[in-house]
Amino acid sequence: MSSEFKYQRRVQFAETDLAGIVHFSTMFRYLEEAEHAMWRAAGLTIAQRGSDLGWPRLGAALEFRNPLRFEEEFEVWVRVASLKTRTIEYEFTIVRGRTVIAVGTMTSVCVRKYPDGTMKATEIPADVAQKLDAFAQ
Amino acid sequence: MSSEFKYQRRVQFAETDLAGIVHFSTMFRYLEEAEHAMWRAAGLTIAQRGSDLGWPRLGAALEFRNPLRFEEEFEVWVRVASLKTRTIEYEFTIVRGRTVIAVGTMTSVCVRKYPDGTMKATEIPADVAQKLDAFAQ
Amino acid sequence: MSSEFKYQRRVQFAETDLAGIVHFSTMFRYLEEAEHAMWRAAGLTIAQRGSDLGWPRLGAALEFRNPLRFEEEFEVWVRVASLKTRTIEYEFTIVRGRTVIAVGTMTSVCVRKYPDGTMKATEIPADVAQKLDAFAQ
Amino acid sequence: MSSEFKYQRRVQFAETDLAGIVHFSTMFRYLEEAEHAMWRAAGLTIAQRGSDLGWPRLGAALEFRNPLRFEEEFEVWVRVASLKTRTIEYEFTIVRGRTVIAVGTMTSVCVRKYPDGTMKATEIPADVAQKLDAFAQ
Repeated sequence: MSSEFKYQRRVQFAETDLAGIVHFSTMFRYLEEAEHAMWRAAGLTIAQRGSDLGWPRLGAALEFRNPLRFEEEFEVWVRVASLKTRTIEYEFTIVRGRTVIAVGTMTSVCVRKYPDGTMKATEIPADVAQKLDAFAQ
Repeated sequence: MSSEFKYQRRVQFAETDLAGIVHFSTMFRYLEEAEHAMWRAAGLTIAQRGSDLGWPRLGAALEFRNPLRFEEEFEVWVRVASLKTRTIEYEFTIVRGRTVIAVGTMTSVCVRKYPDGTMKATEIPADVAQKLDAFAQ
Repeated sequence: MSSEFKYQRRVQFAETDLAGIVHFSTMFRYLEEAEHAMWRAAGLTIAQRGSDLGWPRLGAALEFRNPLRFEEEFEVWVRVASLKTRTIEYEFTIVRGRTVIAVGTMTSVCVRKYPDGTMKATEIPADVAQKLDAFAQ
Repeated sequence: MSSEFKYQRRVQFAETDLAGIVHFSTMFRYLEEAEHAMWRAAGLTIAQRGSDLGWPRLGAALEFRNPLRFEEEFEVWVRVASLKTRTIEYEFTIVRGRTVIAVGTMTSVCVRKYPDGTMKATEIPADVAQKLDAFAQ
């Protein structure tokens, strides 16, 4: 519990749609913002300039429980659910006060990027694994 | 197979990110575009002006197999996997030529919207169910 | 000078494009975020639930001086340049430290929204004009 | 007149906001989509893989005349207003049938990108200028 990372945010106008609520695709952006904030809290960045490592998604899934509306404040709780040789799985809960907005998961893979644009799965660097481990308890 | 609906599209510049590929959250927008095009092909619209019915998401999930890049042309194949009293589940495959980009599902629920902003699950209208059934074989 | 409102923000990953910098259309979203934060600071909201008033754009323009990149922190300074009977003109400067990223303007008009979806320009309510005037010196 | 390029499009759900109309920042994306389609029609691409040339914006401006709504079909007319040594200025009109939605301009500069991420204005290649000239009459 204490190892979860909390990311706080407010809904912006352009994130809503004609139904008056946050568009579901934007919820996935909230997950990513929380993930990257967690990396920063761990002293890391997902996009090191000059690095040939990348972290594309293998999968992403959300269940939506309640809508979010313009200007509402909410939290994204993120936890490292599994840290394997080449992949990281995150678990997320989006809440507004005590109301659960959505729960979900994302999995990323560590890749090496080549000059021709191809990417190949590779081992997660030891220091990255060690720093993210703080959010994996 | 013959009941699947095909939606064609080209990747736009603003849909890419600094990794040089389509951002994963945009892939979920592609699913929705295909869904709405399928509704139009069935003689329906997901957002009838003046209607108090809405179709919020219960869930959405994608597995990503290959990246998409700027200006590439791709197809989203969508099928109604299950049509229940109040919910619709769709199955999607995004392909570029013979390369599978992503596969996934989305589930929506039919709701009645009330003036105070609340929404309550309700039965899918008979004519909507009948028209979507063409894509459910 | 003292009447300008400052909005602070960090660049998110999905806001970048394949050129490795923030997409120019996102800069306009930053302006709007700053505008809405200024309204909140004035005790107002641009989208009062149940209200039949709206604030569509008449125009928006930006000159881009320097790029913004992933995870960079920046500020949007916003000022009410002109407050007329029915329109508000804002002036914006986006800066990262001492580096000017962009300068621009936006103009909104107060409209009354009718049940058939039409909108008609109307006078800005007195209390809104009074509260925004704090940022117009 | 005959040298204008026409780009056709339909409004997608995620492009609307809680006011029920297309968000103004999305209108700028429509301009860019039209610009890039015009480049393709000229046998060009704005993002040649492996090229060290880029085309960042110097400015963008739109005046909004009428709203666009979900599923409406519209056209973006684009014309090269001025082609200088290092910059291109475009003029745009967005229309839905005979209704003008918005008019505006964008200016881009040709830059050479260096490995350290910096960019420096450079001359537009002769073949690019020649091909775009077809839309500049």
